[in-house]
Amino acid sequence: MQVNPGLEGVVVAETAISHIDGQQGHLIYRGYDAKQLATTSTFEKVVHLLWKGHFPDGEEEKQWLVKCRQSQTLSDEMIRLIQTIPERIDMLSTLRSVLVTMENPDWPPTWEQAIRVLVQVPIIIAARYRYLHHKPIVPPRDDLSFAANYLYMLRGDEASEAHVKGLEAYLILTAEHGFNASTFTSRVVTSTESDILSAVVAAIGALKGRIHGGAPSEVDDMLGEIGSIERAESWMREKLERGEKLMGFGHRVYKTTDPRAEALRTVVQEYAANEPWFDFAVQVEQIALQLLKEYKPHRSIYTNVEFYTAAVLKAIQLPAELYTPTFVVSRTAGWIAHILEQASHNRIIRPDSRYVGPKCAKITK
Amino acid sequence: MQVNPGLEGVVVAETAISHIDGQQGHLIYRGYDAKQLATTSTFEKVVHLLWKGHFPDGEEEKQWLVKCRQSQTLSDEMIRLIQTIPERIDMLSTLRSVLVTMENPDWPPTWEQAIRVLVQVPIIIAARYRYLHHKPIVPPRDDLSFAANYLYMLRGDEASEAHVKGLEAYLILTAEHGFNASTFTSRVVTSTESDILSAVVAAIGALKGRIHGGAPSEVDDMLGEIGSIERAESWMREKLERGEKLMGFGHRVYKTTDPRAEALRTVVQEYAANEPWFDFAVQVEQIALQLLKEYKPHRSIYTNVEFYTAAVLKAIQLPAELYTPTFVVSRTAGWIAHILEQASHNRIIRPDSRYVGPKCAKITK
Repeated sequence: MQVNPGLEGVVVAETAISHIDGQQGHLIYRGYDAKQLATTSTFEKVVHLLWKGHFPDGEEEKQWLVKCRQSQTLSDEMIRLIQTIPERIDMLSTLRSVLVTMENPDWPPTWEQAIRVLVQVPIIIAARYRYLHHKPIVPPRDDLSFAANYLYMLRGDEASEAHVKGLEAYLILTAEHGFNASTFTSRVVTSTESDILSAVVAAIGALKGRIHGGAPSEVDDMLGEIGSIERAESWMREKLERGEKLMGFGHRVYKTTDPRAEALRTVVQEYAANEPWFDFAVQVEQIALQLLKEYKPHRSIYTNVEFYTAAVLKAIQLPAELYTPTFVVSRTAGWIAHILEQASHNRIIRPDSRYVGPKCAKITK
Repeated sequence: MQVNPGLEGVVVAETAISHIDGQQGHLIYRGYDAKQLATTSTFEKVVHLLWKGHFPDGEEEKQWLVKCRQSQTLSDEMIRLIQTIPERIDMLSTLRSVLVTMENPDWPPTWEQAIRVLVQVPIIIAARYRYLHHKPIVPPRDDLSFAANYLYMLRGDEASEAHVKGLEAYLILTAEHGFNASTFTSRVVTSTESDILSAVVAAIGALKGRIHGGAPSEVDDMLGEIGSIERAESWMREKLERGEKLMGFGHRVYKTTDPRAEALRTVVQEYAANEPWFDFAVQVEQIALQLLKEYKPHRSIYTNVEFYTAAVLKAIQLPAELYTPTFVVSRTAGWIAHILEQASHNRIIRPDSRYVGPKCAKITK
């Protein structure tokens, strides 16, 4: 038996949740093109689709929204913990810790548990953010959408429709992306019949890894360093001459433009076309793609989701420190879809290993 | 490509940490028989063996012990969190939450980080246990061994040598057991270059699963229900007639007596032979094995580690609510050995899946 340390090519599950076509640049959620969903649907409806396999309609949608909104809590217990965890602790570790105040969920995971975990994540992030910035904590409202509520809790007043739509497109497009390491982690934990909270907390830990959660704020830094469109070419040329990478380009799976990047560009174009910063980002992208063709003619390196994540999140004026936490807000939906699917026909995930340590000679001594 | 939902037979890594010979009933740590280690070594030395591949000797051992003991902290921050997390929250969720007060560790994991995580686990468990039982929290001492300290922090005074030795044998025997689901979880999280704390927190979540962490306290319950040796045969016969399982017997891997069970029996025999309760457990085991031969003649069902875990932990008067947390105390050593090994030649663990959801027909609508 060969050792396969990355499990590449090992098919660990059949899934009906999503499909990535890296050659054609398609990301499919339960038969729907994520790109189209980003501009035509809402985050709540996409979550319903990912979890239950169909769009809610009419009465079902109404009840779904009521459930989502009524499940929001910001308890005194949560606030006390948010204030007790030392300020130097990063946002994702804090989030993991505060999630503990939910009742210990039973096995198997239920829709109710799923909704509660999903809606708690932005509440905790927003509350901690405001606490760290010495602003009064803002409780959730039950008359706002998921995306609008998140911005409201962060800012203390209602966001513009453009900002809400921009965030909503981002949340939809990054909600789910197949068997990446954090999603796989959530399925391994679920496979022991552990609770939904343990699986989500574990997945957050995997996403924290610097080669997984990504670094959209590094794109932000890069654009900041470039500074002006006149400097763009020389700055990136120098980078490439030194053999360094350009942040926001290239993806393991996509051999063409990342469909999420494309969709985010469309969205920002629609809602933030007047932002000079956005214009700048689009021009930097064009120059970067030309340079990449010149320097790496034999590799297909295209714009990835992180480039336009930085563009869209900056356009809606989200502080860079919240980029990765906001990725957790959306991806929690995907993790939970996989947790529910894994639980529905479960088998404990336990691969083999090959022992290459010392033989047992010493035992007899 | 076949779907392999449990990853059975898939070799995901070469490891030099441990080897399980299920046919012969051997558990090998880096070339040493765990059974022998349990009676001849200390937990600290076995941890050094598991992490570094060799026993520390002379000066190395002295320095190792100093490091282990000086890394113990019970900060005001930890105490505040222990008091802030609602009392209804279970021990392992609390532990995950309180571990956050450690500095956010960098990648790659270091020995110093490893030691700090390992020694913090029993400190948090003991402090929370005493807090919940309205007793003053007892800080760790730097003149006691790891095992002695754990009992001291739980009880507020020094445990007898017999109790320390019993616990130490248990800790050594359950420190490591190959690629089970929680250990694999810790390696998947590490594979994203995430920090050691995220990997341990994730593994705790997997161990919480009811088909993984085991249920030594259910053995305790069973022995309690049986009550007296006269009732043992009829009680277990009834159970087997109804097609139910006897707790503490049977193991997926071992086709003979679980070597850990055997070693624990030896240890308890030495240190707690006078306990009437232990005598009772040994007699129940004998009757159970006879009945299992009678009812399941074609299967090899032997005593597993949980049976003697209950025996040894009861013999040292550990409350049943601490059985699983104490398993986490020991297994953290094994998780960390795997985290360090994974980090030393890392590759991101990301298996494939097969999409079986609706085709993309709807996209064009």
